[in-house]
Amino acid sequence: MHFEAPLPLQSGASLRDYSLSYETYGTLNAHKSNAVLVCHALNASHHVAGVYAGQPDSEGWWDNMIGPGKPLDTNRFFVIGVNNIGSCFGSTGPMHTNPDTGRPYGADFPVVTVEDWVDAQARLLDALGITRLAAVMGGSLGGMQALSWTLRYPERVGHAVVIASAPNLNAENIAFNEVARRAITTDPDFHGGHFYDHGVVPKRGLRIARMIGHITYLSDDVMNEKFGRQLRAAAVAAKEGRTDASVDYLFSTQEVEFQIESYLRYQGDKFAEYFDANTYLLITRALDYFDPARHFGGDLNQALAQATCKFLIVSFTTDWRFAPKRSREIVRALLQNNRQVSYAEIDAPHGHDAFLLNDPRYKNVVRSYFDAVAKEVSL
Amino acid sequence: MHFEAPLPLQSGASLRDYSLSYETYGTLNAHKSNAVLVCHALNASHHVAGVYAGQPDSEGWWDNMIGPGKPLDTNRFFVIGVNNIGSCFGSTGPMHTNPDTGRPYGADFPVVTVEDWVDAQARLLDALGITRLAAVMGGSLGGMQALSWTLRYPERVGHAVVIASAPNLNAENIAFNEVARRAITTDPDFHGGHFYDHGVVPKRGLRIARMIGHITYLSDDVMNEKFGRQLRAAAVAAKEGRTDASVDYLFSTQEVEFQIESYLRYQGDKFAEYFDANTYLLITRALDYFDPARHFGGDLNQALAQATCKFLIVSFTTDWRFAPKRSREIVRALLQNNRQVSYAEIDAPHGHDAFLLNDPRYKNVVRSYFDAVAKEVSL
Repeated sequence: MHFEAPLPLQSGASLRDYSLSYETYGTLNAHKSNAVLVCHALNASHHVAGVYAGQPDSEGWWDNMIGPGKPLDTNRFFVIGVNNIGSCFGSTGPMHTNPDTGRPYGADFPVVTVEDWVDAQARLLDALGITRLAAVMGGSLGGMQALSWTLRYPERVGHAVVIASAPNLNAENIAFNEVARRAITTDPDFHGGHFYDHGVVPKRGLRIARMIGHITYLSDDVMNEKFGRQLRAAAVAAKEGRTDASVDYLFSTQEVEFQIESYLRYQGDKFAEYFDANTYLLITRALDYFDPARHFGGDLNQALAQATCKFLIVSFTTDWRFAPKRSREIVRALLQNNRQVSYAEIDAPHGHDAFLLNDPRYKNVVRSYFDAVAKEVSL
Repeated sequence: MHFEAPLPLQSGASLRDYSLSYETYGTLNAHKSNAVLVCHALNASHHVAGVYAGQPDSEGWWDNMIGPGKPLDTNRFFVIGVNNIGSCFGSTGPMHTNPDTGRPYGADFPVVTVEDWVDAQARLLDALGITRLAAVMGGSLGGMQALSWTLRYPERVGHAVVIASAPNLNAENIAFNEVARRAITTDPDFHGGHFYDHGVVPKRGLRIARMIGHITYLSDDVMNEKFGRQLRAAAVAAKEGRTDASVDYLFSTQEVEFQIESYLRYQGDKFAEYFDANTYLLITRALDYFDPARHFGGDLNQALAQATCKFLIVSFTTDWRFAPKRSREIVRALLQNNRQVSYAEIDAPHGHDAFLLNDPRYKNVVRSYFDAVAKEVSL
């Protein structure tokens, strides 16, 4: 959907005109009361569920959560996925043409925030004729958008489902983002963010950024269980059914020695093929900047006083990126404001990634919650 | 000290001839029974204590621990610091001339292991006429060397002090090392490790490597306390005594916004000025490879059965790089072998870095232990 009216941004700049890529699933009911907005995290998109015709590998990023008969049941709810501004999956972003220059925006794309994304999503809902969401839902950075919705548009949200998220980044979170950004911006192929003009991509930096990211998505436990100290040679031999493989070290500083190295390099290579470097900078910065308590002297209780909806907050015990204690900060601040909050701390081994995985207890919590939401709205 | 005899390495290769830089503190007694070897970690050297004449900033890296009247008291003990082979502070390393080619070793420097370092240190002790150490001591990677001493030369060690260490790296530890190495090796200035010939240094990669390292040295708590979400502009203003500084965001993806970013960039820049890239690869690989249980089917109890000395093991509660549970693995395996072990788990907020800091409880534990060692040996 194209928007002609400029979007004023938190930075004071504005985006002249822009497009949002979005997908919907299920049917909007006559009362337009069954809409659920699903917000995406760092490298995901509007394609939250289902597969495209003739593309069996095109499964949406939250397909185990959203669809007919699934916890967020598209037989009952009208689900909307939107690609955020600045992303690289269809909505206006750094690789698109800057109408002021006729060249790709590149590093000149304005810095966007969680609040800006929420504002853009609200305009999309306006255009779809949806005045009030049955629920807004997201994990990680998507959870921040859900939380922001309850503060910017309290009258438009019935429920917010905030999963594996945090009320802001802590110093360590920012630190990891900064290292990733520096890897990208110091890659000679970055060209100050105008690499499109040079026909190159700062893949070295993107690979490093993704490797760092992956370490923070996984728990120590699951990494030890999946990879441990297994040597690549031993893993390859096991895969090929050989038992005679040497299990000695290669004694090399640059070759892949351990399975975990092979995994990280693979993830880095894959990511560098499809993700935009400027988008990476923008989205990690949106994470850094999110901090609803900032305009209340750091007081989250005051900040969340504006929310009026009901909440489901979910965290995962082994998530060290957005640890349960960060979710509990949100829960406590909402309770201080006498808001209705359900909180589930799921004992799962997978770290931050758990929010995307198929844990039955987690899925049951979300399913039950949406059952209750369904009873509230006229379906 | 120069060694003419080749050093056979764990990899099967050997180092033709080599030099070790070392320093000693205190006086070797007539029985030669008061020697304590101090092993260094990643970026340290043989200069463990004291300052060089006329160089007030040249304080040794463990000067708060070692010196006259200090926990490891050089009035009583003869302390030896050795720079490890492959390092960049004097001992033979990648920037030295390869006698086979007449060019700097660069990436051709053989891969060295903790065991190789211990063997080289043993030869140095031979040359100094020291047959048995009162103690061997180290933190982090230095602790691994201390542990290795007790296994390779059990008859030559009276006590081992193993601080903030681990019986091997876990998958997450290896993962962080690998990302750091990839940042270095994919820096175009690395030139496959032969950057000396090109008159350049892969500083971009070294900076990223050091930034990643620093994140893992600090605890989440201390990072939040020291930096939190403080903006750089606010910190600068506070330093200059101004209270009128804007505390708004810059809304930039590339400028320094938060204090933690400023700190990390500074640490990265400083490190890239003095540390050798090939040394970084070698030393992180030595960390990866250390695993005394490997030749015992992963059974640490069996591996440590070879040790005969007494042990002090120290860990720090907030160290998530080498967490207390890793030290406890060592303690348990030693107890299984009926070895005499003292274990202190220090409640300190500083993360892995705590082993270098001046925590009174930690210092008292080490002081008491060395008091006991002093009573055992003829001083």
